[in-house]
Amino acid sequence: MKTIGILGSTGSIGTQALDLINNNDNFKISYLSAYSNVDLLIEQAKQFKPEAVCIGQELEVNKLKDSLKNLNIEILSGNDGITNLASRNNIDLLLNALVGYSGVLPTLTAIESGVDVALANKESLVVGGNIIKNAISKNKVNLFPVDSEHSAIWQCLVGEKKDEINKLILTGSGGPFRKLSLSKFNQITKKEALCHPNWSMGSKITIDSATMMNKGFEVIEAYWLFDIAIDNIEVVIHPQSIIHSMIEFIDGSIKAQLGTPNMTIPINFALNYPTRTFNDSYRFDFIKHNSLTFEKPDFKKFKCIQLAYDALKLGGSYLVVLNVVNDICVNAFLNDKIKFIDIPNLIEQAMQDHSSIHLHDIESIFGVIDETKKYISNKIGV
Amino acid sequence: MKTIGILGSTGSIGTQALDLINNNDNFKISYLSAYSNVDLLIEQAKQFKPEAVCIGQELEVNKLKDSLKNLNIEILSGNDGITNLASRNNIDLLLNALVGYSGVLPTLTAIESGVDVALANKESLVVGGNIIKNAISKNKVNLFPVDSEHSAIWQCLVGEKKDEINKLILTGSGGPFRKLSLSKFNQITKKEALCHPNWSMGSKITIDSATMMNKGFEVIEAYWLFDIAIDNIEVVIHPQSIIHSMIEFIDGSIKAQLGTPNMTIPINFALNYPTRTFNDSYRFDFIKHNSLTFEKPDFKKFKCIQLAYDALKLGGSYLVVLNVVNDICVNAFLNDKIKFIDIPNLIEQAMQDHSSIHLHDIESIFGVIDETKKYISNKIGV
Repeated sequence: MKTIGILGSTGSIGTQALDLINNNDNFKISYLSAYSNVDLLIEQAKQFKPEAVCIGQELEVNKLKDSLKNLNIEILSGNDGITNLASRNNIDLLLNALVGYSGVLPTLTAIESGVDVALANKESLVVGGNIIKNAISKNKVNLFPVDSEHSAIWQCLVGEKKDEINKLILTGSGGPFRKLSLSKFNQITKKEALCHPNWSMGSKITIDSATMMNKGFEVIEAYWLFDIAIDNIEVVIHPQSIIHSMIEFIDGSIKAQLGTPNMTIPINFALNYPTRTFNDSYRFDFIKHNSLTFEKPDFKKFKCIQLAYDALKLGGSYLVVLNVVNDICVNAFLNDKIKFIDIPNLIEQAMQDHSSIHLHDIESIFGVIDETKKYISNKIGV
Repeated sequence: MKTIGILGSTGSIGTQALDLINNNDNFKISYLSAYSNVDLLIEQAKQFKPEAVCIGQELEVNKLKDSLKNLNIEILSGNDGITNLASRNNIDLLLNALVGYSGVLPTLTAIESGVDVALANKESLVVGGNIIKNAISKNKVNLFPVDSEHSAIWQCLVGEKKDEINKLILTGSGGPFRKLSLSKFNQITKKEALCHPNWSMGSKITIDSATMMNKGFEVIEAYWLFDIAIDNIEVVIHPQSIIHSMIEFIDGSIKAQLGTPNMTIPINFALNYPTRTFNDSYRFDFIKHNSLTFEKPDFKKFKCIQLAYDALKLGGSYLVVLNVVNDICVNAFLNDKIKFIDIPNLIEQAMQDHSSIHLHDIESIFGVIDETKKYISNKIGV
């Protein structure tokens, strides 16, 4: 039996993971956390009976306590509560399904506590890639990707050798604006940007898919996960989102992982690795979906991908700036404070205005995060 | 260093294997054999300096002896010569690239001599699947597929578990007559049938691709190679021949192996396994070849696939009948003795006329081969 902790249990990845774990005797839930959806967290706590739960928003802690009294469940709150959970080493696997760069501390804390991490929080690696990688190697734990693209690469790499990889081919749907001309990007509405053609996800990642920063983050994530040179990570647009990503090996052979655009497959794989277990998700039918197409990504239209490659090449604190400015800008866009087109432009400006700072530990990352937050908040008045 | 023997060294697979081995210090050629192309065999012998060579056609043996005198190369001939080579256990790997069911004896002989076999001769498994499988398990040797489809499945299976396979998806181009209406099948000429849309191969296998018996044989080969239930082997038409085959696992995840339709990739993989080595074959470009399509195979038009499934379900000697009648009919078609449409019809008739015979050893296979040869030769007057 595997004992699992889930951070971000009320989000898209968290709820799908709990659906897979529900009625499955192979798993026991040790803890759950949510940011603000206290009602769902209460429901999950009653159903899965974890040892502890944590609510991010301190305001909701009393409601949580009242609802779970007499259930012998430890109640925590805020960032300290999340860090407390992440530091517990009496579990086999932490599923980190937090959204945004704040996920980096729990990831690092779990690794330093000797716990394997299934990572759905790609920002952990964007802002803290180098530090996380060193911590993994020092603590001899595993980092399992949950993102569909990285899960695809991981699955294709099973039984293969990293030094026989020629390149990684990350596929991306191209999002809702793949066919929209650049001249119309300044008219993009929130409603349009929130409408992803293939994947049903949270609103932050859906906007990141529309700007294609999500793909940029994935390039960075792939760099840290698979020890591959930046120039050997390629992005190919694949509008149907059936091939989730590929590896080209040195012998010219390409391996791909495919399936319906359904996150239960990568979540299930990460939870059960090294075993594949039955999943009654919809099976892909090549006769019904009989055409898979590919296009070159347009780095002019989707400047965020180019900015991600640039930040990865510049390294260190530029990656923090990329991520923090993006997160705040996406939030500002969702709150009607800035336009869609402003997101890449503000990131580009922030990167130009930034001077590299050496990141030697998590505190230095937080230093750059704080400074960048001030910079961008000041800039856009949020 | 690996010591390799090649049976069928002057054919399409044999010459491509030697191109890969040429100037490669990891390999030493122990022996070569050809059926009738004595000139190329002489050239290969001079270049690769094997210990022994064998020519299938006895008539050519003197020419071979004259050309290779003073080179300290042992000269053999005929089927006995091939069996002699296949029985040598001072090699690491036999590449069996013979054409047709006569390849079964060398395959079995090598296995019984404790030698790993890279199998390009799919007919070995069609006529002798059960016996070969028992011999492999008894002698603890490996059978490596060379067919692009089975190599694809093998590559997708690396690091995975056979019992986690849900189904195998064998892709096939559909051959040159994919779009031709069945009513025009009786007008198909030899020239049309020899013109494969994607693959450059020998004439026998090119005709088998046109009738799609090749795909039928591959279903049978997959059955024996991967221990999978017949009903869990699916054929999907994929006209571009880029995805070479796939595995769907029990968790709904599909893995595929892709690349240009170029046999050097599977040959290279089988020769070098478990290592992938650099191969400067043309790299697949998703932007140039930007559409992969899929269709349901038409078992009415391509009755040979249905006949192969039927023979596999009937088992034993029906598989021998399927293979022998097909080989003789293809030959008769290439010699303008019968029409294209006669091939499946004659096989179907032969299967109807056949009564099952238990196959307990290689001699019993040869018994059915001889009887079937008589039956079909008598029927079509060859």
